Amino acid sequence: MAEKFYSERDLNFHLYEVNDVASLTGYPLFADHSRETFDMVIETAKNIAIDHMRPFFTEMDRQPPQYINGGIRVHPSVKNYMKICGEGGWINAPFPYEMGGQQIPLSINNAAQFIFSAANYSLSVYPHLTTGAAHLIMSFGTQELKDRYVPKMFAGQWQGTMALTEPEAGSSLSDVVTSAEPTDKGYYRITGQKTFISAGDCDSADNIIHLMLARVKGAPAGVKGLSLFVVPKFRIADKGKLEPNDVACAGCYHKMGYRGSPIAQLSMGENGDCRGWLLGSENKGLTYMFQMMNEARVGVGIGAVAIATAAYHASLEYAKERLQGRNVLEKDPTKPQLAIIEHADVRRMLLNQKVISEGGLALAIYCGKLVDLVHVSSGEEKERSELLLEILTPVVKTYPSEMGIISTSLGVQCLGGYGYCDDFPLEQHMRDMRIHPIHEGTTGIQAMDLLGRKATMKNGKALMAFAAEVESAVNRASSFDRTKDRAAELKESLELLKGVSMHLMGIAMKGNIDRFLSDATLYLEFFGYVAIAWQWLLQGMVAAGALAKKPAAQDADFYEGKLHAMDFFFEYELPKCLGLAKRLRSEKTVTLDVKREHF
Amino acid sequence: MAEKFYSERDLNFHLYEVNDVASLTGYPLFADHSRETFDMVIETAKNIAIDHMRPFFTEMDRQPPQYINGGIRVHPSVKNYMKICGEGGWINAPFPYEMGGQQIPLSINNAAQFIFSAANYSLSVYPHLTTGAAHLIMSFGTQELKDRYVPKMFAGQWQGTMALTEPEAGSSLSDVVTSAEPTDKGYYRITGQKTFISAGDCDSADNIIHLMLARVKGAPAGVKGLSLFVVPKFRIADKGKLEPNDVACAGCYHKMGYRGSPIAQLSMGENGDCRGWLLGSENKGLTYMFQMMNEARVGVGIGAVAIATAAYHASLEYAKERLQGRNVLEKDPTKPQLAIIEHADVRRMLLNQKVISEGGLALAIYCGKLVDLVHVSSGEEKERSELLLEILTPVVKTYPSEMGIISTSLGVQCLGGYGYCDDFPLEQHMRDMRIHPIHEGTTGIQAMDLLGRKATMKNGKALMAFAAEVESAVNRASSFDRTKDRAAELKESLELLKGVSMHLMGIAMKGNIDRFLSDATLYLEFFGYVAIAWQWLLQGMVAAGALAKKPAAQDADFYEGKLHAMDFFFEYELPKCLGLAKRLRSEKTVTLDVKREHF
Repeated sequence: MAEKFYSERDLNFHLYEVNDVASLTGYPLFADHSRETFDMVIETAKNIAIDHMRPFFTEMDRQPPQYINGGIRVHPSVKNYMKICGEGGWINAPFPYEMGGQQIPLSINNAAQFIFSAANYSLSVYPHLTTGAAHLIMSFGTQELKDRYVPKMFAGQWQGTMALTEPEAGSSLSDVVTSAEPTDKGYYRITGQKTFISAGDCDSADNIIHLMLARVKGAPAGVKGLSLFVVPKFRIADKGKLEPNDVACAGCYHKMGYRGSPIAQLSMGENGDCRGWLLGSENKGLTYMFQMMNEARVGVGIGAVAIATAAYHASLEYAKERLQGRNVLEKDPTKPQLAIIEHADVRRMLLNQKVISEGGLALAIYCGKLVDLVHVSSGEEKERSELLLEILTPVVKTYPSEMGIISTSLGVQCLGGYGYCDDFPLEQHMRDMRIHPIHEGTTGIQAMDLLGRKATMKNGKALMAFAAEVESAVNRASSFDRTKDRAAELKESLELLKGVSMHLMGIAMKGNIDRFLSDATLYLEFFGYVAIAWQWLLQGMVAAGALAKKPAAQDADFYEGKLHAMDFFFEYELPKCLGLAKRLRSEKTVTLDVKREHF
Repeated sequence: MAEKFYSERDLNFHLYEVNDVASLTGYPLFADHSRETFDMVIETAKNIAIDHMRPFFTEMDRQPPQYINGGIRVHPSVKNYMKICGEGGWINAPFPYEMGGQQIPLSINNAAQFIFSAANYSLSVYPHLTTGAAHLIMSFGTQELKDRYVPKMFAGQWQGTMALTEPEAGSSLSDVVTSAEPTDKGYYRITGQKTFISAGDCDSADNIIHLMLARVKGAPAGVKGLSLFVVPKFRIADKGKLEPNDVACAGCYHKMGYRGSPIAQLSMGENGDCRGWLLGSENKGLTYMFQMMNEARVGVGIGAVAIATAAYHASLEYAKERLQGRNVLEKDPTKPQLAIIEHADVRRMLLNQKVISEGGLALAIYCGKLVDLVHVSSGEEKERSELLLEILTPVVKTYPSEMGIISTSLGVQCLGGYGYCDDFPLEQHMRDMRIHPIHEGTTGIQAMDLLGRKATMKNGKALMAFAAEVESAVNRASSFDRTKDRAAELKESLELLKGVSMHLMGIAMKGNIDRFLSDATLYLEFFGYVAIAWQWLLQGMVAAGALAKKPAAQDADFYEGKLHAMDFFFEYELPKCLGLAKRLRSEKTVTLDVKREHF
């Protein structure tokens, strides 16, 4: 399967032409890097994706993980890919030198992750999870814990996981009941069950290192009593020998898509001998987790964008080749059929995919750079970056996840009946996509985060920082002929969003918190359209500027395509704010009034 | 699997309280029937669905048809179900007595089809296809053809198909190349290939009777040269012996969903001996097909509504039982968790499913009654019914198909991670749903039909008939306290639709046909919201009227539920017209301006 699953030209456009990621090398942390090393990273990622990931895209779906003899058998390509990632330094690439990393900016690491995820999403998560788990140990663990676990994880030999969810504690982490009983031997005795743990067991790794939320006996109820533990599948006994740690894999879910990655059920301490090592202090578990949350959620956004991108390119390729029908003005049935890309409705479906995938990528790259700036900058720039990252995180997680369902579905539709069949990758992309509005915090949870926390934090300072960024783009875009009308429209939508925000906050200030939050999901959708319109305006400005310099034909086509896509977003997507604003300002509280007996 | 997959109460509401289907018995054709016989039909359908269909819902998905030794092996339940349908008279139920049928109104037959499809969509299509094929033979075939094929089809022993699509002729039927060469023996020699033929081969039947479009040698190019043939898999030789008819099954597609029904590739005349028998006259094939088209497309709408309904009830059941989280006002984590139906955002997702599935069912039952009225009425009533059926057919086919993707996806979301796993039926419902915007004319084709043909037919008479119906409902609803505000809103949306229609027709009248049709899909979406809002207003009026009579508690809950759902549709769905209207009135022609090099 050698077909195009992303556009190098487009990725470079976001990284260098719109976001000037190369400027990060001006900060000491990234001073050893240059545009050339960045290009090398991305080129290498591309080659890995083509050689070791994309070839297994279909096969891993058709041969999903199996639960056999108490363990989970995964596709053989996983072990190979983890080895490549370990040897190539991909698992610890963004970490500081002193942690064994390469100090690659997250912007560039995300770009590589985008390529991996577009090639084969299921395969891409294994090292990604390991990075996240190792990051927690590196950030909050003792030197002993670091030395014991991290090197094998970085080498791709041991798999990392995030073990949060339990059968009765999914969206409500407050209800985690897995317990940890202190001993006088430096570890805690863990008892409980976890479910929906990605890569929670797999025969591709010699050991599985769970970063697990549990409640120390006697800890406060709710999230304030959660602690974070390292709970390995095999603990390290004398002379480094691995011995079972009483972590049993109780099963493996079979899923709609994302089938190359096993989602496990785990049972700890069935024999009273599961040991966990505390990270940091007791009862700070969720705080630690949340320090990784923004990056993790940007990562989900990247994954969703990547799948939407692969689906877009697959349907685009088909639309350029498939002959069917004639122009509506052509009445002569003996004339040859047209490539379906010549039909307005097919172009609409392609442009819709293009604005979702490239608009989502724009926002994801932007947010990745914000993470970098939070790390390296100081003073006002750091504060601005933090505020923007806070408010944009639920958006960059959700927009590509929710719109990605629509986008991949449009990809299916472009192919008609073939899109529904598994001879083409579209139906799998649509199935793979569907996990994203669920994992790493559902859309409903993101929406409460945006409206209930982020929009109101520091007296609305994050919201104001966002508005200031949008207004600055509007002002700049007003000086280009090709973008000035769109700038005015974005300004109008932003004012609408501000008005709706004020309206909702008025409700909150009167103490009607349930009503304030009842349509948070619609508010998040609204915010998403404005944020992506802003990203398209930024792209449009760069394209207009580049076209003014009379580039070569191929580049000119690329920039013209950007401007047409920007126009499409403003014509077809942004007007959806009108209906959302109408609803968000309505006095009727249907979802609060209806009772369960009415269903 | 004994869970609820539709609501009897709701189905009866649509049939008898809103649409007064019982009044059909006043027409001579249905005079032998009564509310009691209708109830008996529906009760029997329910029992068949529970006993013989729902139990195989999951299994047929996991054990899809297989192509073995040149034929397709399907799940064993198919043969049993076809036998039940044959013996129970389900395949010819709506046909006149003289055709061996029971003269059941299509309204009632559709209600039964709704139950079957909700229980197990894949299984429901086998007899449904056979009915359609037999209907064509009964309508246009010679007595000899009728005698030869129809009895075995009605008995459920022979499977019927619609064989239109070819590898190079999907949406463009104009490009069908399967050829038919006349002989002097009463049959034609058929050569060609067909693809995506539902139930195109299956070992559940002793014979497969294809109703096939082909081009008689020398016929005009385009759709005007298409003829309709009966092409059996086995032809009938002397003494009724079946002999192969040179129809080879070349393969079977593997699909995203709808996996219990095989979609076959066929090759006719590889040995020069495939015989087809002409139906009616040469070159009239598409005309004959189109006479069945409205009913077939209402049928697709029913199928989509049924799947959305089953998904809604599955997620509703889960939401009532699953405990997770607390009220946003509750800060004490030791308080017990709530059933998730108590969360506003979950109610939003349930109400959204409710308005799509029950609103879609309302329109489908309404359209089924229109088909009945076209058959039995005369004069003005017949003309009005015909006009309404013409303009509503693309809407009733598309609204449930497109919105059903969103609706089943919301069903998945209600269950969170469990929704994505195959332990629950939601993910399968979502996969099964995805075929509907594709088969029996894609959404793009329906949109061209609505805007290009139906909205303009007879100088806009069909559009005016629709507007008159909506206005009549608005006038009546203005006299109920609970519906009068909604009536005003519907009136406003209708005016917006009229305005957009005039705007678009102005473009057409200037000869800009490509521009006129370029956003036909958005126009169809817009039309759908208005049509479903109208159906919700009709339901709301009935509910308001019934509540005024102080019904028993359970009925009161049902009617209150209808009013809340109506409110939800007007608050959350209808405002989407604002954005669509803005786009449809815009002067910018993005999808016409963009070129293939820009992608």
